Order: sequence, then structure tokens, then C-alpha cells
Amino acid sequence: MFSMLLSLWLLASSPVLAIWPAPSSISTGESTLWIGSGLSVTYNGKILPWTYGYEPMGSKFSSSEIIKGGVARAMKNIVHNNFVPWMLYNRMELETTEPSLFKSKTYINHLDITQSGTDSSKTFKPLAGEVDESYSLSVNKNGKVSIKAVSSTGVLRALESFSQLFFQHSKGPFFYTKSAPISITDKPEYDHRGVLFDVSRSFFPMDSILRTIDAMAYNKMNRIHIHATDSHPADLAKIQQYAVNRGIEPIIEIDTPGHFGIAALSHPEIVAGWDSAPWTAYCAEPPCGQIRLNEPKVDPFLDKLMNDILPRVSPYSAYFHTGGDEVNFNMYNLDPTVGTNDSSVIVPLLQKFIDKHHARVRKSGLVPMVWEEIPADYNVTIGKDVVIQSWLGDEAIAALTAKGHKVITSNYNYWYLDCGRGQWLNFGGADLETYYPFPDWCSPYKNWRLVYSYDPRANLTDEQAELVLGGELAAWSESIDDATIDDILWPRASAAGEVLWSSPKGRTQLEAAPRLAEFRERMIARGIKSGTVHMPYCTQGLNSTACQYL
Amino acid sequence: MFSMLLSLWLLASSPVLAIWPAPSSISTGESTLWIGSGLSVTYNGKILPWTYGYEPMGSKFSSSEIIKGGVARAMKNIVHNNFVPWMLYNRMELETTEPSLFKSKTYINHLDITQSGTDSSKTFKPLAGEVDESYSLSVNKNGKVSIKAVSSTGVLRALESFSQLFFQHSKGPFFYTKSAPISITDKPEYDHRGVLFDVSRSFFPMDSILRTIDAMAYNKMNRIHIHATDSHPADLAKIQQYAVNRGIEPIIEIDTPGHFGIAALSHPEIVAGWDSAPWTAYCAEPPCGQIRLNEPKVDPFLDKLMNDILPRVSPYSAYFHTGGDEVNFNMYNLDPTVGTNDSSVIVPLLQKFIDKHHARVRKSGLVPMVWEEIPADYNVTIGKDVVIQSWLGDEAIAALTAKGHKVITSNYNYWYLDCGRGQWLNFGGADLETYYPFPDWCSPYKNWRLVYSYDPRANLTDEQAELVLGGELAAWSESIDDATIDDILWPRASAAGEVLWSSPKGRTQLEAAPRLAEFRERMIARGIKSGTVHMPYCTQGLNSTACQYL
Repeated sequence: MFSMLLSLWLLASSPVLAIWPAPSSISTGESTLWIGSGLSVTYNGKILPWTYGYEPMGSKFSSSEIIKGGVARAMKNIVHNNFVPWMLYNRMELETTEPSLFKSKTYINHLDITQSGTDSSKTFKPLAGEVDESYSLSVNKNGKVSIKAVSSTGVLRALESFSQLFFQHSKGPFFYTKSAPISITDKPEYDHRGVLFDVSRSFFPMDSILRTIDAMAYNKMNRIHIHATDSHPADLAKIQQYAVNRGIEPIIEIDTPGHFGIAALSHPEIVAGWDSAPWTAYCAEPPCGQIRLNEPKVDPFLDKLMNDILPRVSPYSAYFHTGGDEVNFNMYNLDPTVGTNDSSVIVPLLQKFIDKHHARVRKSGLVPMVWEEIPADYNVTIGKDVVIQSWLGDEAIAALTAKGHKVITSNYNYWYLDCGRGQWLNFGGADLETYYPFPDWCSPYKNWRLVYSYDPRANLTDEQAELVLGGELAAWSESIDDATIDDILWPRASAAGEVLWSSPKGRTQLEAAPRLAEFRERMIARGIKSGTVHMPYCTQGLNSTACQYL
Repeated sequence: MFSMLLSLWLLASSPVLAIWPAPSSISTGESTLWIGSGLSVTYNGKILPWTYGYEPMGSKFSSSEIIKGGVARAMKNIVHNNFVPWMLYNRMELETTEPSLFKSKTYINHLDITQSGTDSSKTFKPLAGEVDESYSLSVNKNGKVSIKAVSSTGVLRALESFSQLFFQHSKGPFFYTKSAPISITDKPEYDHRGVLFDVSRSFFPMDSILRTIDAMAYNKMNRIHIHATDSHPADLAKIQQYAVNRGIEPIIEIDTPGHFGIAALSHPEIVAGWDSAPWTAYCAEPPCGQIRLNEPKVDPFLDKLMNDILPRVSPYSAYFHTGGDEVNFNMYNLDPTVGTNDSSVIVPLLQKFIDKHHARVRKSGLVPMVWEEIPADYNVTIGKDVVIQSWLGDEAIAALTAKGHKVITSNYNYWYLDCGRGQWLNFGGADLETYYPFPDWCSPYKNWRLVYSYDPRANLTDEQAELVLGGELAAWSESIDDATIDDILWPRASAAGEVLWSSPKGRTQLEAAPRLAEFRERMIARGIKSGTVHMPYCTQGLNSTACQYL
């Protein structure tokens, strides 16, 4: 029934009311409401005092503090970071259709929040499925607003939807919706809705990461996967707390045994083939280097590293990502403790390595994650608790779920955001002609339409589909840094955000385009330098067929 | 000899001294100089008083005012928008190699500028080749700096090179070069070095355009081609004056007779097929609309339009761009004054249209520009004064120059910056599968390496090569707006900037990569949100082979 309501709404909705990602069901009316100069909020019947700019601090999380932060951000986005939606109307049409400032107004002055469940520590660092993010939101004609949810996370999702109901008036700082009464019920399609943020290859200032966490929350995404080789401890804690307060779980990855060469600068004795040449023979990209597989000093090193990092992960997350991608077997020819690329020698060593490493993770109360190569390509046996991140596509997911493994997908054919922008390597000599016009390995560029066309559960049995917990957009940073990260992520991660949050029924590229174009303007107003959905001619009037290929 | 010197420099240069684009010749030493707290400037022997933030105003241009502005900007970029080049050195190496703050210092306190020629009104709105942009710059060991040039434009180019000599010290606001004495002589390879900025399809705030003009000046580019259907007059004048003061000629285009549908909103009687459907039958992109070809009201309309716009163009430019691309002959089936798509009927009408329109331009003392379709595809005869903008590639340029036409190139295979990022059209129904994965018409993406590999004079006779005046990077804005324009333009337009400024001899992708990576950091420091050249690992130590494909 939810999806039937959704389909009807998609056909009949007002041209300017795009909750992104689309909720399970929504009904709207045609009355106008204005946001009052103050908003009195109750939480489970008690007044919740809030102030603009409120940000909960520290590593102890409380439901009411989290909700207070959510209210502060929603109101800030409504009254400070809003936009006049001229570009959503036909030429000159906004002025003739926006509500009059001179008629008597009905204000929204009260918001009642009811949380029916009680949060536990798991709410703030859940395994997939452990937190109920569903909510309902109703705004009646008289300006009474109520939010109902099971968890504080559900309340955050409801507040985000609430903040997207309003526009700024062209004549000044007045904020309205023309669609009251409004009734929304909503819940996510997938439990794991993430962005992989590679902070290891390029330098990103804190603001870049915090801004991305905010933008993810606008898209109701709930996992930020930080591909890190190192992080300053105080910064790390700030990122983790900032994320948890927005209903986003920070997952830290320290990639092993591949992609680990840099450790040779301080610990040469545990690394094989640091910066070996030609790099093409030994790794996927320079500089090469892998953890030695039969070196006694590796275990004490990893014990020490994990004893340092895992206690700083476990307060904020149920997972730790152990990496495991692109292990190059030829590299073990250069490993004095192995001395061969023979997989019959390497695989048993790798099995031992993974067993020990996952045990370290479990000992800290965390669930290990790995890249798919570990079980799929190297035939290493892993526990059924482990969540496998797949990047090689549909066949890999089918094979892994057929074996009963839990999977999240970052299918590179759809969700690798660095692809299609050309090589970051430099070419000379004969290579110059051979590799002209310098395409990268995973062209084409994944424009939002391609991102949106991906179905993570395509061609799976119901049983297998249940094991696909969700997915992550991957922002590898060989060719990205702070200057361009917003353009790389948005609106493409928004397209994935809707794939992961909203029911697939009733959604199409054509009907999504005007909604995404509206939401993109909202992100711009909130300081996210998102790329465009299409040009203003296509946005005006939100006529989804104006720029349809015909 | 210049190019021999260049080659030697490219091999032997210090790791952190990249003048971009590469000058004709440069020699450097190993002495350190510091920028003093004030800089006393003389211009042809007289003191030139300057202040930070100085911006010449108005439509009258004076050589000394233009140079005063150039000094102010160069000094601002040295002492306010500079950067500590840690990312150009190997890990921890900057600190051990940057000059000590505690040794006695030699300061640069004087800059002597000598202009040997006299500027004329043509200097500030030149035809290609009418202004001599060459210069020499010398910085001796004692901190004496002298610039010599024929024109004030040459002085601006020299000041830009001067500003790129310095870095910020890691310990604070102190600015040094380690490469004195320095001697540079320099001149451009091509006379027309431009960016096509499409302000018609997306809205760009003034700041976006002014910032782009600044960035172009950093790259010694000298033409901004504004693809405009309209512009607010005061804004237009500000843009024009801002550009001229930076040695950049603003060229305005009002595209005719195609790409003109929007005029139907006010003047339906002069437009054929406004917003006709299906658009694919009548134009290259929606909304369709072309100027009627046999309608008596067209001439009075264009007379009035040109009488309004041309007097606002001619004070600042020697050119007016009349458009002429993508005229769709089928559209003339919908033109009640033509009623056929028969080219034997249309071409004579088009010839008459172009003759009259170019006459309007010439009457205002301007030289017409056209897109190549007018002469090449529609066989319309045009004057030899006309500059033809080619976008269809090498064969078109060979054919046009063989006929003695002057050409600038925007070869879409190399220099169309909107390409390769996927469709901006939306797909539904059967099209969804047909057009999957939604590539645009001109994939792949033109990464800087591909932009850099283009030779505008490839396979031409010397006589033909002379007729290639230069080129323009094209930033069409179907999928671009202010949020992402910097990422679209830079560093790719920088790559083209060097192709157009520097001699092709001695330049390769491999040796350009570290120099461009350094210059990109300089652009970032100056507020241009350029994309990356590659990741910091490849930038560190400016080792051009670290990230070479091998």
C-alpha cells in the first residue's frame, strides 16, 4: 500500500514539494503555513529547549540531546539556509503563485515529538537492522506538527523531511509551505546506506568531512566509511561524534595486507616490496607495498596498532573494516618470508592472517568487514558474521549471497564516483600513443542517471536479497581533493541515497529528475557545492518531459 | 634558440619554480631573495604609486593605470594568496630545505618597468596579432627586478610571471624565491588564447565570471568569449572593463539564426518552430527555435538589437561573434516564410541573412566571427576578414585554412570541457535501455592530459598554420553552473593555456605534470577551486616519473 500511495503522489504532487529521498507514503493539501519566529518543541510531552547552532558534545550520547541537535539543524536549514525557488517555476510564474505576505497567516509554532521506543547503546552504533529508522510526520491545517518514531534516529529522519517542506519567500526572510495538511509515513529500504570517503590518498580538511556528513544526513544516509591509513586522534573523535549525532555510523578502514606500503617508512621489517618498480608488476597503483605474510614481527605490530585504534572505534561503531582488496600475489616473490607467487603457498598464509586479524576485531566487540577478494578471489574462509563489501558487480554478489554471506555493494559499474574522468597517471614515450586518449580503467563517468539505474538486489532470490544490507558510493581520491569533493559526490550520492532509502516501485529516472533538481537547489542553499541535475530550462516548471530524450 | 633553452630548463629546473605556461627561455640561480614589506615601482623612470586592491575603473584605458592594477594584483597574490609548498617536497623535506628566517636576508624592494612601445586604442581591443605581448623579466642577485615590454599587455604578462616566482615560508608571512638570479624572455605562440563561457544556459553570478577572468590572466590567456543571449548592461560593462584591465579581450556572441528560439517569448513573429516537438526532429537540444529566413520583420528586429548591443561591444573588443552553428534545415519546414527543407531554397536565403548581418557588424567597426558550419557545411560565402571558429576538428581546419580563412579552434575531441560526464537529458520507456549507460555525444571526458595533447596546427602547411590564430576551451553549460565551474575549467584550461602560449618544442605530458601540479596549488591559493592534477604522492618531490605508467 505504501508504494501505491507513493506512485500516486509522484504523479499528482505539487511541483515544488520534493522530499528527497522519496518517502514511503505522503499526502498533501493546498493550504499555506508559515514558520513562526520561534518554534516550541516538546519531546515525549516535555518542553525541549533548543537554540540555533546547538551541537551535542562528547562521547556519551543521549536521545534528547541528539534530538535537540536535530531540531537546531532543521530550523537553521529552514530559516538560514533556504532558497527562493524561482528556478523551479516557469519564467515569471513564481511571483504570481507564491503566497501573499499581506493576507492573514497561519503559523507553525509547535512541534510535538513522540518517541515510542527507548534508545540503547546499539542505537548509536548499530549493526545493520538494529535501529528502527521509521517515522511518521504530520502537519495539520492549523499548523500543528507531530513526529512519531521508535528511535531518536527515526526522529532525525523526520526532522530532515520536515526541513524540506519549506521555501523562502522572494520578498524576504519568510518561510512557507503551500501543501498543508501533510502526512508522511516513511522507512528505509536498506539498512546500510553509505559513502566511502578515501582520506588516505589526498588531504581533506576537517570541514570537508564534516560537510559531507551533513550532506549525507540530508540524504538520510547512515554510514560513512573512512578509508584511512591514519587520522589524528582528536580529529577522529570529532568526526565520529559529529556523525553519530546525525544518525550516521562512522566505519573506519585500515586496509590490510595490501595497500599498506607506507608503513615501510617507520616499520620496513613488516612490509614487502615497498615502492617496487615497475609498479605495474606488483600492485594496482604506486607506491607498492604489502604486509609480509610469514614474518614474526607482523603480529606484534598489528596487535599494537589494533590495541591503539580499536578502542577508539568501538564507542562509535559496530564495525571495523579490515580491507583486503587487491592483494598482489606476485608481490610475494619480493617477500623474503614467502618468496613465491604460488597460491598454494600464499592462500594458507593469508587464511592465517585473516583469522588472526578478524579475531582482533571481534575481541574488541566489533564485527569485521572485508573487501570481496578475500573470500571470492583468494578462497579464504571467513565467518558468517563478517560483512563483505563487493565492488566487482552482480555476479560477485550473487555468488557471495548464495553462500549465505552478508554483503554491501559498491558495484564499480555504477557507484565508483572517480571513474570516467581520465587517467591520473602520466604517460610518455610509446605509452603516449598506446593509451591515448588516456581513459581510466572504469570509464564511463557514472552520471546520476547511471547511479540511479542500479538495483543492488537485481536477479537475486528473496533469501539472497535479504543478505544485501545496502551499499556505499565510493569516492576514491586519486584525482579528488577538498576543492572538488562536493562536485564528485553530489548529486550522484543523492541518486544512490534514494535507491537505498526508497522503495523501487513507482520510481523512474524521468520522475526523479525534477525532484532531484529541486533537492539539489536545497543542497546548494545549505552550502553543498553540488553539481547540476540539468540546466535551468529543464528545471523550470519541474516539467519532467521538457528535457526528455524523444 | 629559445626552445633549446626551454628544453634545458625543463630538465634542470629547481623542483619548485614552475612559471605556467612555460616561458620561451628562463635561466635561474640558487640565491635566495625575500619580498620586502613595500615594493617601490617605477614605470618608464617615474615612480608608480600603487596600493593593494587597486582596480582601474571606467571605459577609458591608460597604460599606467593598467600597469598599476597589474602590480597591485601581483603583490596581492604574492603576499596574501600564496602557499607553503609542502606538497611539492618529499615528506618532511620542505622544513630542511626552505631558507632560514634567521640568516641575513636580501630583499626585493624595487621593480623597474620599461615599456618601449606606446599603447594605442588597439592595444586594449586588438585584432589577433595587433598587440605585442612579449616581455623580459630579470631578477638579479641583489634583488633588483626589471621588466621590459613593448606594450602594457606585455608588462601584465611579466608581472604574472613575477608573481609566480615566490612561495610562502612555513613559519609565517614571509615570501621568498630560492632561484635568483632569474632571467626570463617570453612571448606567446598563438595570438588568440581563449575560454568560451556559456552564460546563456545556466545562471552565473558576476563573481563566477570575474573569477574566471582572473584565472585566465594567471594562465596568460587573452580572450573571453561570452556566449550570451542577454546580459544586464551595467554588468556587461563591468565584465568588459575587468577583462581589458587584465589584458583579456571580451568577445560577445549572440548566436543566429539557430539557437534563437527564446526570442519568441517577446517576438514570436521572427521565430520559426519555437519549442517544436519532438525536438530531436528540429534542433540539437530543446527548446527549438530559429530565426525565420524570409520574414520582413527580421531585419528591423536585428537592426534594433545590433544598434543596441554593438555600441556596447566596440569600446572593448575588435570582434563580435555572430554564431551560426547547428542551423537545422528541417526546421524551415515549420517556417511559414520558407516552407521547405530544400537546401537549394535555404542556402540563398542564408547567404542573404549572413551578408546583411555581417554588414551590421562591420558598420560598427567590428570584425565578424562565425561558427564553421556557415562556410563549411552550408556553403555560404563569407569575407576573408571573418574569423571562423571551428569545433569539428582537424579536417575542417585544414579545409578552411586551405581556402585562406582565418580560424580559431575549439576541436570538440580535445577542448570541449562538458564532454564525457554523461547525458543531461532524461530517459524513460524504451529509450532507457537503448541509451544505457547514458553517455553524452562527445565522450570521453577530456582530462588535462588529453587537452594537452592537442596541436592546433597539426598536419597543416606553414601557410595554413599561419591562419590558425589560436583556440578556445569551450565550457558549454548544459550541465554546469557556478557551483562547479572552477572544477570544469581548471586545470584543463591551464593545459590549453600552455599549448597556446608556449612553444611545442621540449614540452611533454611527463614534464608538464609536476609543473602543472605546482601551478594548480598556486591557483588554489588564489581562490580558484581547480581540480587536481594527480594525488599528493605524485606531486611530492615533483618527481615526474613517480606516477608514470610503466
